[in-house]
Amino acid sequence: MERQNRQARRTQALSTTHTAPMTAATTHTDAVIVGAGPVGLFQAFQLGLQDIRSHIIDALPHVGGQCVELYADKPIYDIPGIPVCTGRELVAQLQTQIQPFAPTFHLNQEVTEVVRLDDGLISVRTSAQQHFICKVLVIAAGVGAFQARKLSVEGAAELEGTHVHYRLGDAARFAGQDVVVLGGEASAVAAALKLTLETKAPRSVTLMHRRDVFTAEPVLLQAMRDAVASGRLQLQIGQPTALLSTSNQLHAVQVATPDGQTIERPAQHVLAFLGLSPKLGPITNWGLAMERKQLVVNTETFATDVPGIFAVGDINTYLGKKKLILCGFHEATLAAFGAAAIVHPARKTLLQYTTTSTELHRLLGIA
Amino acid sequence: MERQNRQARRTQALSTTHTAPMTAATTHTDAVIVGAGPVGLFQAFQLGLQDIRSHIIDALPHVGGQCVELYADKPIYDIPGIPVCTGRELVAQLQTQIQPFAPTFHLNQEVTEVVRLDDGLISVRTSAQQHFICKVLVIAAGVGAFQARKLSVEGAAELEGTHVHYRLGDAARFAGQDVVVLGGEASAVAAALKLTLETKAPRSVTLMHRRDVFTAEPVLLQAMRDAVASGRLQLQIGQPTALLSTSNQLHAVQVATPDGQTIERPAQHVLAFLGLSPKLGPITNWGLAMERKQLVVNTETFATDVPGIFAVGDINTYLGKKKLILCGFHEATLAAFGAAAIVHPARKTLLQYTTTSTELHRLLGIA
Repeated sequence: MERQNRQARRTQALSTTHTAPMTAATTHTDAVIVGAGPVGLFQAFQLGLQDIRSHIIDALPHVGGQCVELYADKPIYDIPGIPVCTGRELVAQLQTQIQPFAPTFHLNQEVTEVVRLDDGLISVRTSAQQHFICKVLVIAAGVGAFQARKLSVEGAAELEGTHVHYRLGDAARFAGQDVVVLGGEASAVAAALKLTLETKAPRSVTLMHRRDVFTAEPVLLQAMRDAVASGRLQLQIGQPTALLSTSNQLHAVQVATPDGQTIERPAQHVLAFLGLSPKLGPITNWGLAMERKQLVVNTETFATDVPGIFAVGDINTYLGKKKLILCGFHEATLAAFGAAAIVHPARKTLLQYTTTSTELHRLLGIA
Repeated sequence: MERQNRQARRTQALSTTHTAPMTAATTHTDAVIVGAGPVGLFQAFQLGLQDIRSHIIDALPHVGGQCVELYADKPIYDIPGIPVCTGRELVAQLQTQIQPFAPTFHLNQEVTEVVRLDDGLISVRTSAQQHFICKVLVIAAGVGAFQARKLSVEGAAELEGTHVHYRLGDAARFAGQDVVVLGGEASAVAAALKLTLETKAPRSVTLMHRRDVFTAEPVLLQAMRDAVASGRLQLQIGQPTALLSTSNQLHAVQVATPDGQTIERPAQHVLAFLGLSPKLGPITNWGLAMERKQLVVNTETFATDVPGIFAVGDINTYLGKKKLILCGFHEATLAAFGAAAIVHPARKTLLQYTTTSTELHRLLGIA
């Protein structure tokens, strides 16, 4: 509550000075971070130590970025002071660490537009129609926004959103219909199982993968085999070769089976879980200096060539750059000092230590 | 054993190519690190990932540098991924992390001389008469070598080494004599107690401090009070004002007591534990470019202006420099890439990830 009040006061204060066009959905804040990977999370911590609160936007529905998307359960050995941890463990530790600064997360949405306004403030819009006006923007977008790999068979593009889907969403919309779930990973298996357990279940649920090999937790795999054995879930080994539709109404998936046959499975909906691939996406359109698809920064504050916009982690480039998480942590730290000079221009940004500074202890909420 | 053999082979290979003058005590190695603080330790890890073994030299008798010397039991909140840890805990974690690369430690000695030889190799000498010839030197010396604060009363300087000492050393040399131990910290209390328990004990042991307040573990303090109660240890509250000697033979310490009296305590030896203070010391004489007592480096590899010599952590300076441990970790990482280009000039230094690289797994000793 106290935090909300403080945020409200800050928003009010800002509202009286900015000159950007206002809409009801606009959030005024000091800092926006693009990317909730490990470096984006630690950026919120370092901004917090500079008494700057942040909003964090990420395209994925969860925090952690590549750490969780690509190596959640794989070991990392080179985080200094942590002999070994998984991607998921590192992210959990970082979430604990940033708790004192409670950044506001805006997940499941991409940043679509970034514009520096005449008054020096920065306007940030997302695919979920959110609008931010901030003093500093830190781009910690890694290799770009992770997006679902699209199904590349004939007819798929035309049916996207109506009959072809890349996330489960509201399962009730599939009630009484035939659904084919594509994929061999946990996300596909879990979605297929969930559908069979709906109160308003589909008429049929088919899990389809090119091989009879699925990658998921043993418990999930067993549940899947049980559902197949009991007839609740159908298993189809093969690859989709075409989507058969009439007047933009899907009615079947054409499948090439491993033994060389072509068959059809009735389906009004296809749910495809074919993995995620990062897309740099709109970042290339924000007018920032780039080199080989990376944002050019200076090594003093990791600022881009646009005042108020910083870039840290895998998305940036400079002489000597190595795409390592621990380097991103350093970059985020120096970027926070650069941000403080903009957000708190009247304050001296002295270097203080978390071990000894009562000011930092106050910010960290340590008695 | 395998590691020793490998080291022996490497030394042999090096011996045939270098042109530096050889003595029996010279160690030939790829890398020497000056400073065993957190950044020096992590430097050994990053060099290890580049297939470079290192020798680490430190003035203190233990690893950990400032982390252990200044805030061993105090909390640090800004190590990324570690919400809170003490200095000692961080150092312990780093020691675990670098175990696969088993650097050789040379503690309790300062680096006294650094010379770049005509053939590009670097000669490093220490106060313990050790001599290294290495391909790369990384200076991670923090705020300098920690040295005992000297006793600043009349006569102390002349008696240093014979009657005035700053470490316990071989306790047998005090057998049958009167010893005054100065200081209020654990080091003083522990040394005084140890002396009273020697088989060949001093005739008398006096613990002297300006106030009757001692800072040490409760167990140590209780043992001290017990030793005083039993008469094995004498307690003298007061400050030394002069050392009284005849023909350079100490016979008493003059003491100002809290009630304004001046007394004399018989003593042939004074053991002073007055804390440590860092001294940049000989580093200023190695011909490296400096700015405000810091080594100037580039931010690409954190190399100094002398080829083969790098500087990381608190000892270096560059645009944007912040003296934070986490920044030192980044610097050590980029320095390791710079070092690899010198030690393994024929190899490509590709960026590899500890999560996925079988080459790094081999170096880390992971099956």
